[in-house]
Amino acid sequence: MLRSHNCGELNISNINDSVVLCGWVQRSRDLGGMTFVDLRDRYGITQLAFNMDVNANLCGQARKLGREFVILVRGSVTERSNKNLKMPTGEIEIIVNEIEILNESKTPPFTIEENTDGGEELRMKYRYLDLRRSNVRKNLELRHKMGIETRIYMNSLNFIEIETPVLIKSTPEGARDFVVPSRINPGEFYALPQSPQTFKQLLMVAGYDRYFQIVKCFRDEDLRADRQPEFTQIDCEMAFVNQEDILSTFEGLAKHLFKTIKGIEVKEFPRMSYADAMKYYGNDKPDIRYEMKLVELTEIVKGKDFKVFDDAELVVAISASGCSEYTRKQIDELTDFVKRPQIGSTGLIYLRVNNDGTYKSSVDKFYSEEELKKWAIACNAQKGDLIFVMAGKTEKTQKAMSELRLEMGNRLNLRNPEVFAPLWVVDFPLFEWDEETNRFYAKHHPFTSPKIEDIPLLDSNPVEVRANAYDLVINGVEIGGGSIRIHKKELQNKMLRMLGFSEEDAQNQFGFLMNAFEFGAPPHGGIAFGFDRWCAIFGGSDSIRDYIAFPKNNSGRDVMIDSPSPIAYEQLKELSIKLDK
Amino acid sequence: MLRSHNCGELNISNINDSVVLCGWVQRSRDLGGMTFVDLRDRYGITQLAFNMDVNANLCGQARKLGREFVILVRGSVTERSNKNLKMPTGEIEIIVNEIEILNESKTPPFTIEENTDGGEELRMKYRYLDLRRSNVRKNLELRHKMGIETRIYMNSLNFIEIETPVLIKSTPEGARDFVVPSRINPGEFYALPQSPQTFKQLLMVAGYDRYFQIVKCFRDEDLRADRQPEFTQIDCEMAFVNQEDILSTFEGLAKHLFKTIKGIEVKEFPRMSYADAMKYYGNDKPDIRYEMKLVELTEIVKGKDFKVFDDAELVVAISASGCSEYTRKQIDELTDFVKRPQIGSTGLIYLRVNNDGTYKSSVDKFYSEEELKKWAIACNAQKGDLIFVMAGKTEKTQKAMSELRLEMGNRLNLRNPEVFAPLWVVDFPLFEWDEETNRFYAKHHPFTSPKIEDIPLLDSNPVEVRANAYDLVINGVEIGGGSIRIHKKELQNKMLRMLGFSEEDAQNQFGFLMNAFEFGAPPHGGIAFGFDRWCAIFGGSDSIRDYIAFPKNNSGRDVMIDSPSPIAYEQLKELSIKLDK
Repeated sequence: MLRSHNCGELNISNINDSVVLCGWVQRSRDLGGMTFVDLRDRYGITQLAFNMDVNANLCGQARKLGREFVILVRGSVTERSNKNLKMPTGEIEIIVNEIEILNESKTPPFTIEENTDGGEELRMKYRYLDLRRSNVRKNLELRHKMGIETRIYMNSLNFIEIETPVLIKSTPEGARDFVVPSRINPGEFYALPQSPQTFKQLLMVAGYDRYFQIVKCFRDEDLRADRQPEFTQIDCEMAFVNQEDILSTFEGLAKHLFKTIKGIEVKEFPRMSYADAMKYYGNDKPDIRYEMKLVELTEIVKGKDFKVFDDAELVVAISASGCSEYTRKQIDELTDFVKRPQIGSTGLIYLRVNNDGTYKSSVDKFYSEEELKKWAIACNAQKGDLIFVMAGKTEKTQKAMSELRLEMGNRLNLRNPEVFAPLWVVDFPLFEWDEETNRFYAKHHPFTSPKIEDIPLLDSNPVEVRANAYDLVINGVEIGGGSIRIHKKELQNKMLRMLGFSEEDAQNQFGFLMNAFEFGAPPHGGIAFGFDRWCAIFGGSDSIRDYIAFPKNNSGRDVMIDSPSPIAYEQLKELSIKLDK
Repeated sequence: MLRSHNCGELNISNINDSVVLCGWVQRSRDLGGMTFVDLRDRYGITQLAFNMDVNANLCGQARKLGREFVILVRGSVTERSNKNLKMPTGEIEIIVNEIEILNESKTPPFTIEENTDGGEELRMKYRYLDLRRSNVRKNLELRHKMGIETRIYMNSLNFIEIETPVLIKSTPEGARDFVVPSRINPGEFYALPQSPQTFKQLLMVAGYDRYFQIVKCFRDEDLRADRQPEFTQIDCEMAFVNQEDILSTFEGLAKHLFKTIKGIEVKEFPRMSYADAMKYYGNDKPDIRYEMKLVELTEIVKGKDFKVFDDAELVVAISASGCSEYTRKQIDELTDFVKRPQIGSTGLIYLRVNNDGTYKSSVDKFYSEEELKKWAIACNAQKGDLIFVMAGKTEKTQKAMSELRLEMGNRLNLRNPEVFAPLWVVDFPLFEWDEETNRFYAKHHPFTSPKIEDIPLLDSNPVEVRANAYDLVINGVEIGGGSIRIHKKELQNKMLRMLGFSEEDAQNQFGFLMNAFEFGAPPHGGIAFGFDRWCAIFGGSDSIRDYIAFPKNNSGRDVMIDSPSPIAYEQLKELSIKLDK
């Protein structure tokens, strides 16, 4: 190594040691006859000291060093007169006797500091400079540790990591595939996997019984904020298990990560049915760091000539603690919030539970004080609380109220990113009905098993069929999801028929899996975690982009390397394709 | 878990335990009143016993179980009368009192045994059954352990695993890229990485100083035997290092894997220059498990009117120990071997060093006994040895002789797959000249640094310039290779110019890297290992395909899932491409 030590490790025990350090010039300060340079690397910052009186030539050299120059220095460790006890190296500095400039640097286009002046686009274009910032570096270090600890846990339980192929076959179900033209097989295409789903099921058929993989997956979606065309999953599957085995095994993984990464001992994760999650939180991934549950007022409020409520399928409320003195302006803001097209509510009704015991509502003319009191009791509201009420179609109103609940959670600082509330959501419906296309879709995916006791409902009442499917939710974010799979060919066939696959389509797309089911497929199930998302949650961030070394922007573009980009005509020709713009 | 134990763990200490086992029926045998079923899972085989006298009904059920049925049995552990001490479970059997058939199986198309009757193509089509064979399973278990131990070693040295993107940008240098049309950016394409080369260099610029990744890479090559379009690398890079640091760090990795995976303590790896490897082995990846070095006879043999030798640039020999009594037929076979088009030699001359001290050569009429003796002395041949001689252009003749050397190594059983001879080959030339296209190519890649002392030769004598490049070779197989990289923009520019990139091309393809070099790029270098290949070597196999769960065939086709395949017209339309067949 060119260096003897890194920039984060020298301390008072190294006094008088001769050392060689390498790193980047973070900043330099001239104080009278002294020049101080902060030398930075991945491990920390060490202060270099130059004395004009002792070595004017060297001090002159130091003064000419620009920001982000890469240098090598030789010197000796000395105790600082002015200690900085906040830094691990803050008690020492290096009396330098030789500088070697390893490479110069132009002035970077933004400051390489935790709080930078660089905008998102500029930082992405110069991502290699952005990655030098200590907060970004910590994110990638966290990610590395998450990977290491995940593998330690999985390996300790006899899971075997098996790489599944990246060049696979396009399937029409789900999101769009990225495809790859085959040169050797003209007119044919590989697809990039949206997940290794069918391969991991084949591994169960092959007897590998405990598989996992940390693996890139791909989805050609219209990118919303914080989606990436390539993302990473912790993909897992087990054989000879029931749902309970999967939940306990992967609750174990989550606890291991909480403990090793965050230093937190977490108790047994609560579980909630999908039905309860929708009823009490309006959301299949509830943030249970705080209560503020949805309360159904439908029965209480009807029959008072208030048409909005009388016509509503659902009238639902939440109670915001200590908010009874919200101003008209604050309430208007929240009304605008729920009326935004993304939420699409038609309005917001409030009820102030005043500190003096009186009630004040936006629908006073329809409801007496006595009646309003019933609302407050139903909501378990206390003096000083503010109740919000919405009405309309059940699912839409629940979802809108969920958004308001989350917004109120933010406003009331109930969503502390350093508090973690994991939750299993279970008993998802097997299907969802799509009004537009007038057909069923698989809520999880077409390989998910219905609950055995609900199989008779498949023909009579499919929407009521519950799946052996489950999600792990942390702080209102879905970290992972999975299911017990179908392992019998007949049931899988029936499922595909219900999802609108013809026999021919099914054979064409999933024939290899159906055939595999005829050669001794064991009962099996699994789960997949969004690795980027989990890292972000543990890092206390909403954005997965901060946890990906080289992310793409919202147009799926890597602005640093300028990709995607046109390719040569000869390349197209070789691939037997042409442009069709 | 449905089971209480797996099929590999019960032994004499479990006698009388009540157990539940799950697995596949490997085979069943009826012996008079008893039926024995071998139950198999990933962990082993356990014998199940059924007694017609005790429970005729159950025994009848057992007799109907077909091969590869998946069953669950409840029973108790008992000591076998007929012990099989070769199996971990061979001292016990299970007295079954209940069988549950979890799934039936059709008769598999080949036997699920180490030695199977299934041909390659059939096994690939039913890969999920092939993967049940214990030898294939052991290969994937080896691979898993290699991954785990690699990560343990790298993590212990503060390397950080960072995922680089899979959807990147096409570059014309090197092998062909697989490309991915972008739907959102019509007419533009991503490319799949042939390696994360530029990204890992950017990570060095970003200050991450010790990076690694076990990562899929892609090459759209015309597939030769044992190449795969997607393959896995252990990709590594370090900053603030010289070549010696890289060699010792990764010799450490290799030793760690030798020790933890193979249980072998390996001494310091020998090193050999590229020049010596070519001179003494005719090969830049010599198999040094055995000597049989190439000996140059050019000077000794000239001037005796034997035109083949007189005209040759190189006359070179090897001596095969104890082969002097090879028959004419054996020698003819070897002559045919070197004349095959893949090798392309024009002929093979032999010299028998007979046990009686006489010499017998195919060119007796040109060379006296005395002269032949000189050859034998040069070759350090002993009585009983057989010397082979070839002549022609230097490089071609060296390579042909290398092939013969390897063939003789095989014939003489000198290439034991359980003996390991690692070797660093160093001092590669920076360029190679291509006669066909009349230009230089980078021997390693365009980012490789010349040796500092050879930089003056860049203009005057480029072919003599040596690179700071190195390969790790084990048993004649290149396991990995790398180099110290260029980290200065000017030198990188000069290199690209010499490789025929115009300024515009260079900017277009590598502009982001060149720009990055202007912002404080540290000295850096790295290495990448072929993970599939390394697993195969450790497993004692020549074929990487045996170490990949779902490999593709020689046409790049996955015959199990039938990929690549045509895609829908609508998909093409969305991607703004059409077929051009």
